[in-house]
Amino acid sequence: MSTLFLRTLRDDPADAEVPSHKLLVRAGYVRRAAPGVYSWLPLGLRVLRAVEQVVREEMDAIGAQEILLPALLPREPYEATNRWTEYGDNLFRLKDRKGVDMLLGPTHEELFSQLVKGEYSSYKDLPVILYQIQTKYRDEERPRAGILRGREFVMKDSYSFDLDDDGLKVAYNLHREAYQKIFNRLGVKYVIVSATSGAMGGSASEEFLAESEVGEDTFVRCVESGYAANVEAVVTPAPEPLPFDDAPAAQVHDTENTPTIATLVAWANSALDREVTAADTLKNVLVKLQVPGAEPEIVGIGVPGDREVDMKRLEAAVEPASVELLTEEDFAANPFLVKGYVGPNALLGNGLRYLVDPRVVDGTRWITGADQPGKHVVDLVAGRDFVPTGTIEAAEVREGDLSPDGKGVLTAAKGIEIGHIFQLGQKYTNAFEVDVLGESGKPVRLTMGSYGVGVSRLVAVIAEQCHDDKGLRWPREVTPFDVHVVIANKDAAAIDGAEALAAELDAQALSVVLDDRKASPGVKFKDAELLGVPTTMVVGRGFAGGVVEVRDRFTGEAREIPVEGAAAAIAAIVRG
Amino acid sequence: MSTLFLRTLRDDPADAEVPSHKLLVRAGYVRRAAPGVYSWLPLGLRVLRAVEQVVREEMDAIGAQEILLPALLPREPYEATNRWTEYGDNLFRLKDRKGVDMLLGPTHEELFSQLVKGEYSSYKDLPVILYQIQTKYRDEERPRAGILRGREFVMKDSYSFDLDDDGLKVAYNLHREAYQKIFNRLGVKYVIVSATSGAMGGSASEEFLAESEVGEDTFVRCVESGYAANVEAVVTPAPEPLPFDDAPAAQVHDTENTPTIATLVAWANSALDREVTAADTLKNVLVKLQVPGAEPEIVGIGVPGDREVDMKRLEAAVEPASVELLTEEDFAANPFLVKGYVGPNALLGNGLRYLVDPRVVDGTRWITGADQPGKHVVDLVAGRDFVPTGTIEAAEVREGDLSPDGKGVLTAAKGIEIGHIFQLGQKYTNAFEVDVLGESGKPVRLTMGSYGVGVSRLVAVIAEQCHDDKGLRWPREVTPFDVHVVIANKDAAAIDGAEALAAELDAQALSVVLDDRKASPGVKFKDAELLGVPTTMVVGRGFAGGVVEVRDRFTGEAREIPVEGAAAAIAAIVRG
Repeated sequence: MSTLFLRTLRDDPADAEVPSHKLLVRAGYVRRAAPGVYSWLPLGLRVLRAVEQVVREEMDAIGAQEILLPALLPREPYEATNRWTEYGDNLFRLKDRKGVDMLLGPTHEELFSQLVKGEYSSYKDLPVILYQIQTKYRDEERPRAGILRGREFVMKDSYSFDLDDDGLKVAYNLHREAYQKIFNRLGVKYVIVSATSGAMGGSASEEFLAESEVGEDTFVRCVESGYAANVEAVVTPAPEPLPFDDAPAAQVHDTENTPTIATLVAWANSALDREVTAADTLKNVLVKLQVPGAEPEIVGIGVPGDREVDMKRLEAAVEPASVELLTEEDFAANPFLVKGYVGPNALLGNGLRYLVDPRVVDGTRWITGADQPGKHVVDLVAGRDFVPTGTIEAAEVREGDLSPDGKGVLTAAKGIEIGHIFQLGQKYTNAFEVDVLGESGKPVRLTMGSYGVGVSRLVAVIAEQCHDDKGLRWPREVTPFDVHVVIANKDAAAIDGAEALAAELDAQALSVVLDDRKASPGVKFKDAELLGVPTTMVVGRGFAGGVVEVRDRFTGEAREIPVEGAAAAIAAIVRG
Repeated sequence: MSTLFLRTLRDDPADAEVPSHKLLVRAGYVRRAAPGVYSWLPLGLRVLRAVEQVVREEMDAIGAQEILLPALLPREPYEATNRWTEYGDNLFRLKDRKGVDMLLGPTHEELFSQLVKGEYSSYKDLPVILYQIQTKYRDEERPRAGILRGREFVMKDSYSFDLDDDGLKVAYNLHREAYQKIFNRLGVKYVIVSATSGAMGGSASEEFLAESEVGEDTFVRCVESGYAANVEAVVTPAPEPLPFDDAPAAQVHDTENTPTIATLVAWANSALDREVTAADTLKNVLVKLQVPGAEPEIVGIGVPGDREVDMKRLEAAVEPASVELLTEEDFAANPFLVKGYVGPNALLGNGLRYLVDPRVVDGTRWITGADQPGKHVVDLVAGRDFVPTGTIEAAEVREGDLSPDGKGVLTAAKGIEIGHIFQLGQKYTNAFEVDVLGESGKPVRLTMGSYGVGVSRLVAVIAEQCHDDKGLRWPREVTPFDVHVVIANKDAAAIDGAEALAAELDAQALSVVLDDRKASPGVKFKDAELLGVPTTMVVGRGFAGGVVEVRDRFTGEAREIPVEGAAAAIAAIVRG
């Protein structure tokens, strides 16, 4: 440590909010180079490489083959799949000296598709899984938490190519199992949640979320059944349709000054002969969907009045369209939309789509806007008085909601995305016509899966889950060193002894960091705790008496062992 | 090989001109993704990683510490050193979503300087050598020869920081020795040549050039003394000054129609009473030097008339200024410059700089322009009739020129730059005020070295130097596999035997590629030669008789060895 390029800091960095960010900077693992762009110092790089190696081993174990694609990519393939546009501001775009458009790769579906198309031509060549561990770029709107959400980061991305859906499912499950092994080896606590596919396209998809209070992804789970899903992916259980033959006819009421659900409920409880809650009202939210390159579309979203529209769920449901609320100009241009009193029929009668929450099944009776200023309609029956264009998962999901599997209720938790597996299907192979000659002699279009692990993010996730108030604590698989040797004795004999012990540990094929600095034992112990190597050997006052101390960074336990045979004893501890 | 992501090609790629490019593509090591941007397929990646590992081991051996900086960098540090501008079109520039200027790092002097400034504060912290093996970007005007000159490439760059020049020299020599070890381990034939520092700034610098006919760098060497230098770095030996007391006075002659050196020499031989060659004339070339952000400067360059001005040498000499020839407008704006008849005195008399070849020493007598249309001056004596502003290394270097060390003559050769070491001095530490507290209590400005190895380029260089007409040939240190096992026998027993032998080789800790494809022995042998693994084991007709064949890819030698003990025998061959 007297020559190691490492300076620990006493204070948290000013821009750090989450523990992993504070500690990785204070302990000298990473340094900020630009917003969301970090340098890896010696200890950080060792942890990063260790995580990479675990990922590599498990990918190799499922027969995936490692290659390496460039980060600087041509525009054309991303134009062909429309992602050049769809990625929006998240894509780093640039021009080369000739003015040719290029980009920094955020993920490589296009390039892998083209590569397989170029190399393979027969059904005999399939299946294949290719992967890379590579630096990726996304121009995040709010890079945060150090390496947890950076703009330059390391990912393992892999891509499977198969002749049919059964093959795709095999590749998908191989990845699912490999990812479980990876995260278990890294000591990460995680859940697998159903997910939506977002800009990736495709059908089945699951996310691996590390449980963490500082996570940006909210997910829900059902303790009773083990169900877990990204909030965007929760499927609302639809109740059975109700008979409505005996339902009263819809009645329009004068409801001055009831522009909100609360005022409407108050009016209904005083004016109608029954108890009414917000759940009996139907809230219609108007949004404008914008698919790049197309005309914007006004759409009505109907949800029970006791729930808000969750914009993230709505955006996931309408992907790749972006969502905006209507402006005053939009209302002015569409006078049939009466602000605060919009009902289903003005929308449907004017050819606009009206998408409702799955709870709005046939026979349900609603209090909702009557499409006239100051008027609402009561007992408007779905399936009788209006027929929605379709359903949409846009209403907020709440703790206590019924689990989609019907086996209990949902509770919410926060997580950090560390892995994502997708059954993409043919979105990309269609774009590039990735065909091989089938066994029958006819061309077969390949089907594709895409799978990612956030390699550099995992360093932060492990720090986040494993730290304590004294500093970092690394699982053995990824620790920058196996053993931290602290010289806490100024006697020349002890110093020589510590160096000899460090050499013995090295001879046991253990990696060692030796704190040979001219600093007080207290400073050294504090730094050892901050750096987080799981096993520390202290060469201190006991050395003259033939003992050294071994400390466990996770349990805090300390015990003395004889100097004689200390290296072998520590090797046994390290190897478990 | 039946499942390996590898397809060899029969034909050379259309855009390939040099052997390494043709072979690396044909053998399935790399694929082009965009001009100057390549993907590494499984075999290529294995070679690249092997080269990286050799570089890493030798860097670690000199006590250098590995870190990893980002490729996406902020503009400010490069603005501070003016390289944001000086790099010109070679720099990939981009803007992020907020419009902030960023760049893709071509080399990292700025960031390493800032990093050391941030971490270190005392003389006790020094010296330090930091390195990274990292992806770099340069928007080459003419990317060529595949990975030999790409726009995205892998480099090892390291930076030394020292308290004084003696320390810098130590770090420089450590690198010089480490580089020799690296290139020797990789089996690369190279020369070390004196070099100019170019845009890097600084004083001493040497280049490691791999000898190659396809190299873009011309260098010269002296067989007698071992001297070698980049053409840009050749220092012209200046002759002793001559006495000129007895020299005749300069005479202006009417020399109609002698705008070229050849016509002038012809005139002189007919009009003067002596034999005249082009070397007796002084050719004055006018150029405009342009430093970014400054006014252009017209400068006269005087060279003996038997030599051209070498624009690359001139550019290196005036770096960071760019060089342009004068336009008609420039002549019109400076009527004292008489095109075709420019002499030293119009330049000097009008306050312009006049820089001469080192051969133009005091007392030399010249026939040159008289600054009047159609007139030349004879016996113009340097040091008497004109005093140049200074000397410049701008004249072409020719085979047969005297070596600067005076021990022989120069011959020319071509090479590929594979390493470069610089004593930068304080250019960057001044820009960022990288000071530490010295032993005396006063701040000490650090001095810096910068050192690079072209890691991905080395893959092409090795291919270039080691191939033969049948394909690639890899030195053992970097071969993608230790052994290539070819099944050249359709008997089930032989196939099983080959698989068992491959497993035995694997158990000997050798990496093996097994050609288990349903293809003819001829196709398999051709591919084995193309792929270039140094040792091939053929399980063929002899298998039933208890023998397999071992082939050496370098010598072409083939011999039979018993199946019994074959794996151990091959392990012995591989380990030398």
